[in-house]
Order: sequence, then structure tokens, then C-alpha cells
Amino acid sequence: MSNYSGSYSSSQSYAPSAPSLPETHNNSSYNNSSSAQSYYAQPPPPPPPSQQQPYPAPSYGQFSAYGHSAFPPGTHPDVIRSFEMVDRDRSGFIDENELQQALSSGYQRFSLSTIRLLMFLFRNPHDSLRIGPKEFADLWSCLGQWRAIFERYDRDRSGKIDLMELRDALYSIGYAVPPSVLQLLMDKYDNRSGSRKLGLSFDSFVECGMVVKGLTEKFKEKDPRYTGSATLTYESFMSIVIPFIVSYD
Amino acid sequence: MSNYSGSYSSSQSYAPSAPSLPETHNNSSYNNSSSAQSYYAQPPPPPPPSQQQPYPAPSYGQFSAYGHSAFPPGTHPDVIRSFEMVDRDRSGFIDENELQQALSSGYQRFSLSTIRLLMFLFRNPHDSLRIGPKEFADLWSCLGQWRAIFERYDRDRSGKIDLMELRDALYSIGYAVPPSVLQLLMDKYDNRSGSRKLGLSFDSFVECGMVVKGLTEKFKEKDPRYTGSATLTYESFMSIVIPFIVSYD
Repeated sequence: MSNYSGSYSSSQSYAPSAPSLPETHNNSSYNNSSSAQSYYAQPPPPPPPSQQQPYPAPSYGQFSAYGHSAFPPGTHPDVIRSFEMVDRDRSGFIDENELQQALSSGYQRFSLSTIRLLMFLFRNPHDSLRIGPKEFADLWSCLGQWRAIFERYDRDRSGKIDLMELRDALYSIGYAVPPSVLQLLMDKYDNRSGSRKLGLSFDSFVECGMVVKGLTEKFKEKDPRYTGSATLTYESFMSIVIPFIVSYD
Repeated sequence: MSNYSGSYSSSQSYAPSAPSLPETHNNSSYNNSSSAQSYYAQPPPPPPPSQQQPYPAPSYGQFSAYGHSAFPPGTHPDVIRSFEMVDRDRSGFIDENELQQALSSGYQRFSLSTIRLLMFLFRNPHDSLRIGPKEFADLWSCLGQWRAIFERYDRDRSGKIDLMELRDALYSIGYAVPPSVLQLLMDKYDNRSGSRKLGLSFDSFVECGMVVKGLTEKFKEKDPRYTGSATLTYESFMSIVIPFIVSYD
């Protein structure tokens, strides 16, 4: 298999990479949000859109102890409220448990596994163990995009994504993942009930999708001409992979 | 940096790869236990060596419901006892919680993170969610080797491995890990107390060492001439990496 396209034919098929990750991430390849936007016919709005007109955010971040980060102008008040609700000491940063709680109000209670991956991908450059208002707003918006993709490709409305739906969902955001890799992903992230396959919940779908996106973007950096192969030194291989191996106490 | 040796000079420096992983693992590169043995001046015995003369194991596995696996001849009775103690239904297989409990008797209570990595690396070819007597005996013996390495390279007897000790420990088993990668490993596996670095506990050291070993062996398969670089297709890159990304519910 000479390129990324698996059963697809275009060698450029994995080029656009939405949903995009935040600009604060220390990886330049994540920063292609402008090209990614054009890939969506309609950029999905972040839930919950209880009020349609976002208005300028209060300058919450200005009062933080660090002052490195503030909510971007136009951040939906529900997003700010979710953050403020858990940042009880008004430090302007939240840790992984607080993030889990904050996202519960707008999305759901994500597993610690997904939360830690999100912390890694959206981490604050000044504080790798916590995230600030800007990172939180980016993360919230990104999850809204993944939510829209999940709903669009869960065609049978089962609340779960099966292998073919996963293939199509990833393809829709520019990743043509080979069948063998899709199978590995399903083996890992499938929310099984005993031996019965149930498919990916939204939680697992986010974790799986973020892993595919993160690794693929890293690989693309080493394969700028989209040949489907990359030459990696041992050092670069290890440096790419190790951060994705989340460890638990 | 053109080879694996980092600050070391030999291009063969990552060749021998003890402690070896079990033959049941579905990866041929893990099966070099014979060459690995010669790398140790004295193969460290598996703890706890309460009796010095191992004797043939009872044919426990013959009574299992599956019969695929039995303790190898010569398995220490303490190892068999640890397995039997947790396999209460006499199925001949134990799951991750039972493994955590079984290892507590001879080693310590490992984190679920390490347990899941061990389950993945030592998994039974017939049942990927549980391990049988043979896998358990292999795993026990392998942990004994890691324990000996830990004790040998924890030179200041702090009970923790610091960055330089980790470098030397990995080098002693054939892996010359570049400084940048060592730093990544310490960032991930260091048992911190707040911002204070404490070094790797034995639990973290096993997890870290197994990850380095597993990934390096996979990389070496793609670099049979030890040039320090490998050309990977997108499919092979993803297929190597994804299994190491352990997911938690």
C-alpha cells in the first residue's frame, strides 16, 4: 500500500485535518485551522447553543494569577460558566479532574483516559498539568466539531460508531485510514459488552479520533510530499510516539 | 544523530534486548531470549526465592477449561501458588485485576497502567483479555530480571531511578536511548511530588522499560541493518504505535 488512501485513490486524501487543534499546541502542524475550516460545508457550532448570539466574554483571564491566558473574544457564556464553575480558587487554570467536571455540563463525563489525552493535546505552554481559559475554549469548540461528526456518521442513530462509520467519519476530515489500522482502532476503543461489539461511544470516538489525528499529523510532517512513507530516525520515532502513551498512577 | 547510540558510539549498541518477552507474544522480534540470556553475566532469579531448588510444576494447566497453556516444567512453586490463589474458578486464566493481585504477593501492587501494558505484552494468543499459566510464569520471570536491573542501577539506593540511572539501565540491556527521549520518558514516568522530581519507582520503571523495549524492537524490525533510521509506511507506523496506546474506561 503505497499511500495513505487505503481503499481510496487520492494521494492527497489525508491533507485537510479538521477538527483542528489549538494554536497553543507546540506543534505547528496542528495550526491549520484556516484550511480546515474550508473543508466543512458548515462549521458545526459548539454545544450547548442555548443562546444564538455569542457576545464578548467577560475579561475573566485578566484576573487570573498568571495572566497568560484569557477567553477569546466571542466565547459563548456557557463555556465561560463551565470553566468558572470548576475553577473555584480563581487561579485561571483547571486540572484534569476539574476539566472532567467542566466538560460534563456541556457534553458528558469523559473517561479519565480521554481527559488526559485532551490535556496533552490542548495543554497550556506555561503549565503542562493544567489548562487555562483559552485552551478550554479551543477544546470546547473542537469537541463541538467532533460531536457534529459523530452525529453525522452515526447513520443508524445507535449512539455508537461502527467500523464503517468510523472509516467514513475519519475520511470526512481528511484521513484515509487503512482497513488494518481501522480494525486495530476498533479492537482498542470498541465499547464491548463481553465479546459483543457495541461500537464506539462518543467518548471513545473522541479519544480514537484525537489519537488518529495527532499521530497522522506527526507522520505527515515527516512525509511532506504525501508519498505514504516516511523515513524516521530512532530518536524522532520515539519522540513522536511516547507523548501519546498516556500513563496512569 | 545518525544512529541509536545517542552519546554512545557503537552502532550495534541496541542489539541485545533483555529482559526478553515471552515466546507466546505474536511478535517474532520478542523471541530472542537465548541471545538475551548471554547478555547477563548472571541471569537474575525470579523473586521470591524462598526455596532454592525449583521442582517440576504440578500439571495445573491440564485441568484448565481450555488446556492451551500450562506452567513450564521447573516453574517455582511460589509462582504457581500466586496464580492459583487468584484463579478461584480454576479456569486457567486470570484477568487484569487478578493479575494485579497475583503479582502483589511476589513483587508489589502495580498500577493498572503497568498491569494493562503487561497484559498486552504477555497476552495469551487465544484470549487477549486474560493470561494463562505459561504467560504468567514468563511474566514473573521477566519482572525478576527488571527487578535485578532496577536494584543494580539504583546506585544511591533511593528506591527511585533518576535520569542518568535510567540511561545506564537501558544501556545495560542494549538500548542506547538519546538524551531527548530519556527526558521525555522522565517527564512522563517520573513519580513527582508536586513539581519536585522523585525519579521512577519500580512500577514506573517497569512500565517505562517495557515501552522502550517494545517500541525499539518494533523499530529495529524496520531497520535490520542498524542504521538508526527506518522507512515506515503510514500503515505500518500506525500499526506499530496504536497497540502501545493503552486505553482506560
